[in-house]
Amino acid sequence: MPEVIPPDSVGIVTPQVAQFDIPLTLECGKQLNSFQLMYETYGELNADRSNAVLICHALSGHHHAAGYHSMEDSKPGWWDSCIGPGKPIDTNKFFVVSLNNLGGCAGSTGPASINPETGNAYGPDFPVVTVQDWVRSQAMLADRLNIPHWAAVIGGSLGGMQALQWSIEYPERVHNAAVIASTPRLSAQNIAFNEVARKAITSDPNFHEGRYGEHTTYPDKGLMLARMVGHITYLSNASMGEKFGRDLRAQTLKFGLLDVQFEVESYLHYQGERFSKNFDANTYLLMTRALDYFDPARAHEGDLSKALEPAKCKYLVVSFTTDWRFPPDRSEELVNAMVEAKKSVSYAEVDSPHGHDAFLIPTQRYMDVFHGFMGRVAKEIPHAR
Amino acid sequence: MPEVIPPDSVGIVTPQVAQFDIPLTLECGKQLNSFQLMYETYGELNADRSNAVLICHALSGHHHAAGYHSMEDSKPGWWDSCIGPGKPIDTNKFFVVSLNNLGGCAGSTGPASINPETGNAYGPDFPVVTVQDWVRSQAMLADRLNIPHWAAVIGGSLGGMQALQWSIEYPERVHNAAVIASTPRLSAQNIAFNEVARKAITSDPNFHEGRYGEHTTYPDKGLMLARMVGHITYLSNASMGEKFGRDLRAQTLKFGLLDVQFEVESYLHYQGERFSKNFDANTYLLMTRALDYFDPARAHEGDLSKALEPAKCKYLVVSFTTDWRFPPDRSEELVNAMVEAKKSVSYAEVDSPHGHDAFLIPTQRYMDVFHGFMGRVAKEIPHAR
Repeated sequence: MPEVIPPDSVGIVTPQVAQFDIPLTLECGKQLNSFQLMYETYGELNADRSNAVLICHALSGHHHAAGYHSMEDSKPGWWDSCIGPGKPIDTNKFFVVSLNNLGGCAGSTGPASINPETGNAYGPDFPVVTVQDWVRSQAMLADRLNIPHWAAVIGGSLGGMQALQWSIEYPERVHNAAVIASTPRLSAQNIAFNEVARKAITSDPNFHEGRYGEHTTYPDKGLMLARMVGHITYLSNASMGEKFGRDLRAQTLKFGLLDVQFEVESYLHYQGERFSKNFDANTYLLMTRALDYFDPARAHEGDLSKALEPAKCKYLVVSFTTDWRFPPDRSEELVNAMVEAKKSVSYAEVDSPHGHDAFLIPTQRYMDVFHGFMGRVAKEIPHAR
Repeated sequence: MPEVIPPDSVGIVTPQVAQFDIPLTLECGKQLNSFQLMYETYGELNADRSNAVLICHALSGHHHAAGYHSMEDSKPGWWDSCIGPGKPIDTNKFFVVSLNNLGGCAGSTGPASINPETGNAYGPDFPVVTVQDWVRSQAMLADRLNIPHWAAVIGGSLGGMQALQWSIEYPERVHNAAVIASTPRLSAQNIAFNEVARKAITSDPNFHEGRYGEHTTYPDKGLMLARMVGHITYLSNASMGEKFGRDLRAQTLKFGLLDVQFEVESYLHYQGERFSKNFDANTYLLMTRALDYFDPARAHEGDLSKALEPAKCKYLVVSFTTDWRFPPDRSEELVNAMVEAKKSVSYAEVDSPHGHDAFLIPTQRYMDVFHGFMGRVAKEIPHAR
């Protein structure tokens, strides 16, 4: 817990709920008659409502991106390193909005929420949501907050996909978009890892085809496995090697089949177990499907530059050298399509040992690039303070 | 099934069993009072017993490396592409021995075998076996077959570790060693993937701490998951992309959470399911532990070149460009230590799109390198025909 709030923190923040009783038709064809979105804001909206920045979260993220909920919090929000006074997403200049996506499990309507039409939790009946659905629901939140356009939409990983989709879907409402450690579509290997995670969850006998709530069980073992395999893909080979190497928990090999012997095993168990206690299994399935499905080029015979045609924003694309989940060549694919579509784009491949997780870690060159881009965004704002 | 046996096949082969009633003390300190090894041989041992070649198998391999067991077989042995008349391991020149390792589930004594002391299957009580234990048991098989030394010991992946260990453990008995797509020790990432596989098996409620035999259950779902995650690491990102890309099984997205939608998902399910029907879960645990534990440098404060000091053989080391399980730099680590220890070593980094599985696939340059090396091995044999 913070003894004092650090000066570059947004401080104590309070999540808010936006309730929507307007039907939202989803890409799958189904309709949600009402839903709520949990969100937080940092900084102040300026008089002409031109300094708003939207933060889009990744697979296991949520609305709590910066600051603390109370002085008892052991850790700040998940992107606190990048959001705050003087940080790249500078809350002295920007009004920052961060939400939990539809289908999530941190307060927004999702599989664990009560379906008002049945009185029971949606569970597996919650409709499949896509990146496009998220962007549309985020636009409804922008309307609610009276934000006509975003100075920037920013996201890493799955969040980067949302930033990209915003730029295509609402070209007039996005002035800048930052697509960090992301990809214009998943590779077969990406989908394969997601499918292992899903299969781990659905194979857990406590899953009950997603109706674990009704059975008062929980597929925690499956979710733990899903997170373990996911976690390996977030780290680089090098960073795992540096962090754990072949270090043993005891001094010598135990020669037991079921013993935890290497530090890296113990670490993975810890990560998996902690996650499985705090995340909804059906939401995990939804989020991985949203990743799999995202492919803006699909409607254009695979031509990504054509898909990007409507966009009017300036882009920042950032990749990290040791990210093998969404490696630099996936970002380059995106940048090349942007160039072909004659869009304005800055691209940085940042040297980092941290794998995919690098987008969460404030290394020097990454922060320099991010500061530079957001500085230019701030200068465009007519009445920036 | 073959309508006719191809001319470069070793033809119909019959597995044999070697029964050992001599106690074998294992690296873990436990003792096996008796055990059997299932093996096959191809080609003929020459008069001075100087043309024998040992094939060591990988994680899920077995003794059936080449030829057919009957005309009904749909496929030949697992390394048929490399073993046979005129092939790199030329059965016109060499007497080839291939066995199922101790702890395996293809006929050699392992967890599924009956423990003569209890009358029940060993199950999880089967002792943990290591690469060193395998090499020692293989030496007992060599004694039984009256093979004083191997013209070559050859293996890919975990098999390469055995070839390396042979060269250190029995320097006088190994004239050449081929270490293909292997590593002198697993990385943290390698161990992490193995641990996900083990956790998938042990989390399956049908596992019963390894006593699924007594419960007449089988942890097939866990084993399926283990194989799925393993399989991803055997293929390259590129080969998965080429084979499956983002191809859908149906024409359109189904927007179902539990549907199999992408071809790559269906392929992984098939591979996982097929494997889970044919492999013993306790053996899978044993084999992955043997991989984790292998580290000949451990006894020499991490100095691999010192570990290699006793070796007297000539080495061939082969790596494959897209193998990300045991990438070329792990082979280079080994080659550098061999050079430092002043050993004779040939090294080839072979350009291949097939990932780790490349060691099983007879691509041109790989076969050229393999033919070249084995040709030199044949020339060293005093009375080679």
